[in-house]
Amino acid sequence: MKYLIIGAVAGGASTAARLRRLDEHAEIIIFERGNYISYANCGLPYYIGDVIKDRNKLFVQTAASFSKRFNIDVRINSLVTAIDPAKQTLTVFHQPSGNTYEETYDKLVIAVGAEPIRPPLPGIDSDDVFTLRNVVDTDKIKNHIAKAKTRKAVIVGAGFIGLEMAENIHGLGIEVEIVERGPQILAPVDFPIAAIIQQHIRKKGITLHLNTAVTAFNKNEVVLDNRDVIETDMVILSIGVKPDLQLATAAGLDTGNGIIVNEYLQTSDPNIYAVGDVIEFNHPLTGLAGVTTLAGPANKQGRILAHNLVYGNTQKYNGSINTAILKVFDMTVGTAGIASKHLKAAEIEHIVSTTHGVSHAGYYPGSKQMTIQIAFTPNEGRLLGAQIAGYDGVDKRLDIFSSLIQQGKTIYDLIEFEQAYAPPFSSAKDPINIAGMVAENILLKRLQVIYWDDLENVDFYEDALIDVRTPDEYEMGHVKGAVNIPLDELRGRLGEIPANKDIYIYCEAGLRGYLAQRILLQQGFGRVWNMSGGFRTWKICMKES
Amino acid sequence: MKYLIIGAVAGGASTAARLRRLDEHAEIIIFERGNYISYANCGLPYYIGDVIKDRNKLFVQTAASFSKRFNIDVRINSLVTAIDPAKQTLTVFHQPSGNTYEETYDKLVIAVGAEPIRPPLPGIDSDDVFTLRNVVDTDKIKNHIAKAKTRKAVIVGAGFIGLEMAENIHGLGIEVEIVERGPQILAPVDFPIAAIIQQHIRKKGITLHLNTAVTAFNKNEVVLDNRDVIETDMVILSIGVKPDLQLATAAGLDTGNGIIVNEYLQTSDPNIYAVGDVIEFNHPLTGLAGVTTLAGPANKQGRILAHNLVYGNTQKYNGSINTAILKVFDMTVGTAGIASKHLKAAEIEHIVSTTHGVSHAGYYPGSKQMTIQIAFTPNEGRLLGAQIAGYDGVDKRLDIFSSLIQQGKTIYDLIEFEQAYAPPFSSAKDPINIAGMVAENILLKRLQVIYWDDLENVDFYEDALIDVRTPDEYEMGHVKGAVNIPLDELRGRLGEIPANKDIYIYCEAGLRGYLAQRILLQQGFGRVWNMSGGFRTWKICMKES
Repeated sequence: MKYLIIGAVAGGASTAARLRRLDEHAEIIIFERGNYISYANCGLPYYIGDVIKDRNKLFVQTAASFSKRFNIDVRINSLVTAIDPAKQTLTVFHQPSGNTYEETYDKLVIAVGAEPIRPPLPGIDSDDVFTLRNVVDTDKIKNHIAKAKTRKAVIVGAGFIGLEMAENIHGLGIEVEIVERGPQILAPVDFPIAAIIQQHIRKKGITLHLNTAVTAFNKNEVVLDNRDVIETDMVILSIGVKPDLQLATAAGLDTGNGIIVNEYLQTSDPNIYAVGDVIEFNHPLTGLAGVTTLAGPANKQGRILAHNLVYGNTQKYNGSINTAILKVFDMTVGTAGIASKHLKAAEIEHIVSTTHGVSHAGYYPGSKQMTIQIAFTPNEGRLLGAQIAGYDGVDKRLDIFSSLIQQGKTIYDLIEFEQAYAPPFSSAKDPINIAGMVAENILLKRLQVIYWDDLENVDFYEDALIDVRTPDEYEMGHVKGAVNIPLDELRGRLGEIPANKDIYIYCEAGLRGYLAQRILLQQGFGRVWNMSGGFRTWKICMKES
Repeated sequence: MKYLIIGAVAGGASTAARLRRLDEHAEIIIFERGNYISYANCGLPYYIGDVIKDRNKLFVQTAASFSKRFNIDVRINSLVTAIDPAKQTLTVFHQPSGNTYEETYDKLVIAVGAEPIRPPLPGIDSDDVFTLRNVVDTDKIKNHIAKAKTRKAVIVGAGFIGLEMAENIHGLGIEVEIVERGPQILAPVDFPIAAIIQQHIRKKGITLHLNTAVTAFNKNEVVLDNRDVIETDMVILSIGVKPDLQLATAAGLDTGNGIIVNEYLQTSDPNIYAVGDVIEFNHPLTGLAGVTTLAGPANKQGRILAHNLVYGNTQKYNGSINTAILKVFDMTVGTAGIASKHLKAAEIEHIVSTTHGVSHAGYYPGSKQMTIQIAFTPNEGRLLGAQIAGYDGVDKRLDIFSSLIQQGKTIYDLIEFEQAYAPPFSSAKDPINIAGMVAENILLKRLQVIYWDDLENVDFYEDALIDVRTPDEYEMGHVKGAVNIPLDELRGRLGEIPANKDIYIYCEAGLRGYLAQRILLQQGFGRVWNMSGGFRTWKICMKES
């Protein structure tokens, strides 16, 4: 059997290596347009930022070592220019020699990835406007910074890569401004979580332009749609990527936003398979087709694909819930599943709950805050999404949410989750448990919630707004119009609460508000709501909105 | 409805608080024999070690604050001396006044916990032999250390608490020796994992006496069964705890090792319930009754119990898989589910696999090693247990294993697990994924494993032992009798391998050995085995055994 693989980074390289493990006798050729294979794509921003100091660390394998270990014919600097599905051949252009040749296949794997989006703006091809896809781009950016004595950089696009670049370039002592067309950073997460990170980025001295688009790049200038101009020594464009569909389209394969594959990762041509950032696949929660540009899923696909190539279509890929995480200076933010705004857009009914927790027992040194926002179905409480912003331990909780969402589990499974608890690691009730307990209270109508933006609609003639924190906390800042009745005094001050009004309660994080609501509901007050996420979420959202 | 609760720490306090949230009008009285309620039990060793400096941090609630917030009658220094299930009364001795009185109940909750085991050894009641159960014990130990200018301490028992005490007392500049009757530390984990921690403890300067029992405590001396005597200024006994069954037994409740409860946490008397360390409950994986002495399960039980008290028996407790974790100096060790040795003892068929991974991408600074050992069923690959020793990120992986084991999931779910990956947090293939992939290879017979202790049985007339690491690695140390054929030379040196022998392969961690095995099996060598965990596991186990 003769396998050709186009692309030798995450998906392609893992397919090739597994193929060899399963079939010592197969002929395997892998083509890579560039000089480098199987490099640490996700490490590139950190190499630019000198966090990874040794360039060699970026290379998991070289062409020579990979070839030797796996007995694979690795052809670098080899651009595949065409696929002929009928003849089962590839056309390959060998860049160093200028030769073009054909290569036949029994089975072909397309793993060419995605490329950065470069909108046709004036000046976008200037040599100080960069995108980051591969090692060559990385070297260009790093050389430019070294040579040009860069003092200022503009990042266009505040997604995951944009923020990694912002942090790393800022870390080199370069002033950074970020321009983002949307109303918030990090489009895949909901605003209350993004707002926390926005505040953190600003505190680190980075200027953030939201709701702002670039209209042109002049020499040493970025022109914005509000007519402002930012002077800069360089620009990094990180407004997203799109699957590289040139080959697939020309070969007549079915494509949408990516190459369409079945559950065995097989394209519309039975001899051609595809993996990685170039494919589109149905989301396991919504069934909607989408592109996932993440290294983890690409590696997992490669393993499944090798199995199917050797043993026939017998192993299924189940799709990705797009679990993603980002270090942002001292903080961490991440998401698994689907954000509420995207659930709304897809008209999927759901309930949102925001809770705050701590990385480990508060009495043990070094405990840090985190904020968790989950979305779940209104009836059975099935988890649809989870997002977290905080410091230590965010990655841990996100991984658990990811696993439970992947498994189709419910908020009741959050409650039962048996965390490994000792004071340095967790609490007797982990933030995961608490997220579940609060969600259960909502589902069983023991807790009725409003959200931070609902307070805009409070009418102080019709409604009462009660701050149940301590007088000290109230004095430090409160929602305008709120009356302060501390939780521990509530039972003795029921007479002060208007029985005929809708009552909105909040505390700092949500717990005391819930306790107050339980008291009032059982004391005959019929219409009582507690603010999800409490004053902490309200305050940060107000500031950033 | 009138509820009485005996015991106001984890299980009792969480039951009481939740009861009030669900029923504002109930009468709730909670009795605590000591002065303190709802304190941070798991923090006590760290307060002794001055890691937690402020004693007030140990108190989640005081009797006064708890009483005020939850409108609960909190009676401290009140020892319940008897339960009369027929009359539905308690007898209570109020220690400060010397008064004894009766209190009636509609429903009673027993949450009295477990007490340290104190074997009847000569001298055990000396005032420099301590156990640690509560705040009073803690104060005694701390005062002793301060007053007696302790320079040397002996810890008897190398379980979780024993090791926490060892680390904390060592941290005060006191010399520590640990005496453990068993052949390894940490009885709930298997030897290859315990061995890693043993080595770490020794490196920190603590003396470890294994297979050693104490026969007597003399003044400033601990006498061992090997007739050695350790001079010491104090002794901490941490050889385990047992449920405090005095009240339950006297009241005629059904008991085994703990109070027997049904899935609603109800004892053999329908008006009496029990939670926490005092109960025994069936293990969800084995169905065997056991006692769980962990704070997390106690808190979860309290929440379920409150529901059942208010709404009738409608919420089930599903048991604990005994997920536990421990910080040991710079390292972390933990377990979820059941160790292989305990599966063997229970005659549950299973396969073991040991893998090594890194906390996050190796090319990003600060990446640390971890060792994972899992056990799973031979046919469907259902996870039965997981244990990890390492540095950063052990707690994260353990929590994911805990969740998957709890959910009855298989090693295939480890492979599919979608980790949150960015270089500071994980790798494109997380150690969890890798554990699953290796297990799948074993289950599908693509990988045949032997274990470190199987090498003892290698017969060099019948068998060949091949070290497939590099010559440099081989020179640094290898298994005696092993021939060095580096993986990358193997395809060219097949002629050197005896076709008629059983072939045992090992590398450093297991991966290269697997690759070598794949080559040999497909080149017609019929009987080839790879050593699970590789030379790294073999070396540490040999050293510690």
